[in-house]
Amino acid sequence: MTTPATLDVVAIGNAIVDVMAPCADAKIAELGLQRGGMTLVDTERAQQLYDAMGPAREISGGSAANTLAGLAALGAKCAFIGQVAEDQLGEVFAHDIRAGGIAFDTPAREGNPPTARCLIFVSPDGQRTMNTFLGASQFLPADALNVDTIASAQVLYLEGYLWDPEEPRAAMRRAIAASRDAGRKVAFTLSDAFVISRHGDDFRDLIANGQIDILFANEGELAALTGEDDCDAGIAKLTPNVPVLVVTRGAEGAVAVVDGVRAAVPAEPIAKVVDTTGAGDLFAAGFLFGHVRGLAPETCLKMGAICAAEVISHYGARPEADIAALVSEATA
Amino acid sequence: MTTPATLDVVAIGNAIVDVMAPCADAKIAELGLQRGGMTLVDTERAQQLYDAMGPAREISGGSAANTLAGLAALGAKCAFIGQVAEDQLGEVFAHDIRAGGIAFDTPAREGNPPTARCLIFVSPDGQRTMNTFLGASQFLPADALNVDTIASAQVLYLEGYLWDPEEPRAAMRRAIAASRDAGRKVAFTLSDAFVISRHGDDFRDLIANGQIDILFANEGELAALTGEDDCDAGIAKLTPNVPVLVVTRGAEGAVAVVDGVRAAVPAEPIAKVVDTTGAGDLFAAGFLFGHVRGLAPETCLKMGAICAAEVISHYGARPEADIAALVSEATA
Repeated sequence: MTTPATLDVVAIGNAIVDVMAPCADAKIAELGLQRGGMTLVDTERAQQLYDAMGPAREISGGSAANTLAGLAALGAKCAFIGQVAEDQLGEVFAHDIRAGGIAFDTPAREGNPPTARCLIFVSPDGQRTMNTFLGASQFLPADALNVDTIASAQVLYLEGYLWDPEEPRAAMRRAIAASRDAGRKVAFTLSDAFVISRHGDDFRDLIANGQIDILFANEGELAALTGEDDCDAGIAKLTPNVPVLVVTRGAEGAVAVVDGVRAAVPAEPIAKVVDTTGAGDLFAAGFLFGHVRGLAPETCLKMGAICAAEVISHYGARPEADIAALVSEATA
Repeated sequence: MTTPATLDVVAIGNAIVDVMAPCADAKIAELGLQRGGMTLVDTERAQQLYDAMGPAREISGGSAANTLAGLAALGAKCAFIGQVAEDQLGEVFAHDIRAGGIAFDTPAREGNPPTARCLIFVSPDGQRTMNTFLGASQFLPADALNVDTIASAQVLYLEGYLWDPEEPRAAMRRAIAASRDAGRKVAFTLSDAFVISRHGDDFRDLIANGQIDILFANEGELAALTGEDDCDAGIAKLTPNVPVLVVTRGAEGAVAVVDGVRAAVPAEPIAKVVDTTGAGDLFAAGFLFGHVRGLAPETCLKMGAICAAEVISHYGARPEADIAALVSEATA
């Protein structure tokens, strides 16, 4: 028997500030970047890319942190665990997440490396090409986890990106155990095909062992994880072991299979795609908000689609408009 | 006899990163802020206001630096002189100004205080309420001036904001002398009524002594400087000593008197005012670009109005759209 959850969602993720600038596709090719991808970069490459970047703006990001920003804006009670350095970008990240109403207590890390940043080149069609300097973020120690906080949240939300560095991976394994011991649900977003190429066996083991209650993937990640190019075949492979599976399909909308029942939504129409950064993160926010409120899968998907549409209509991966109002209008 | 200028404009100004967030007017009142104003804040007040601010974004700012960003985007050759600290926000400022194609060689200052920031609360109607922590910016030393650079620019552009702290004021006086000795023009923007209340006598002396060739003011600043509430009476007081006078009047457009000849433009229509930060700075950019290219005052005003309209249609005080294309379409 479990005690009632006092938090809706606790998330563990990279604590990143996004540095974003518009960029012509020709320049993205010239810089040797893979349009639409996410690449990890070291200090030297980060400096080289920053020097090549146009005038930019800084907006807090990080995949799971973006999802929490959406959840909190919708009215969920949330907490974030992630590692910033004791520097100005760390202050920016901490301010922005707390100002969104999210509890954030992980102490800043002294000394080098600095706070993580993601250099994002935004193409004229809104596609984003990300270059992540992980900095302090990859040094999240397992003892930064507050087990009481994790046990008090209905859902533990984990981002695949953070599975790559060693210390946070160990922390996340501990967090999964703490959440399950407390009778809570574990949600996981696969984040990127490169993460699956490196750690796919870990993820397949977690899934086979019933450790993942809610799984978010896009089509590419689903294919990488299951080895099935066909979306439906990939879904069929996972659903026996994943109670809630959500697959986003870009402009084609999204599919969810919840306890064996399938639902789908088209993408929300939007006037102009400005910047797709955070689309998946905000889709997860909308879906998860509906899910923790016990709403029907169709409604959860619709909420995800609305939040994703909001975030791609402007620069930055955190919501700007009143998404709670948008969602409640559309689902009334 | 003067040598041909190799730069169009060199500017001396505060090197500031703007920290911007939307804010309800009720909260602006509750925080004791004067809606639409600019207030200097110390470390403690800056922290208090930042804590009260919602999730924000960071975009390089600074009045004269914004004007240069506009000028450079229009195709002018520019250089900036201003003081950042050796910290992450200083790197952000330096990157953004250089990425805009502007020469910037002032060495970063070691140690405290940190780089200047301006906490900007943006009201639902787009009005901006600014709270500036000057930090390193106020310690621009006179020896940071590159006299050769100043002498090589057709126009020296100075912001009134920077007249307030002592060191930059001395630097600006030296710069004026260097520019005039080289037979160049001095442009000055009054920046804010509070600056005039503290240093109005300095400005009136400079004007009376024929040291200011081009003066930018809004209606409130004009009234504060001349003691005339009526805009035309204020203009009449200045024109005998100011060869080029430009007065911006918000939604009512702008007036210029160039060598005794008056011209006026209405404000450009825009779909939605998002954030008025930088409107005056970008008006100055458009006007000055036309002026250094020898265009008619009406055309210069029109170019100013177009640049101002672009910058108030989005967050941040630096242009995002291709203003060179906008200006050339409208003035073809």
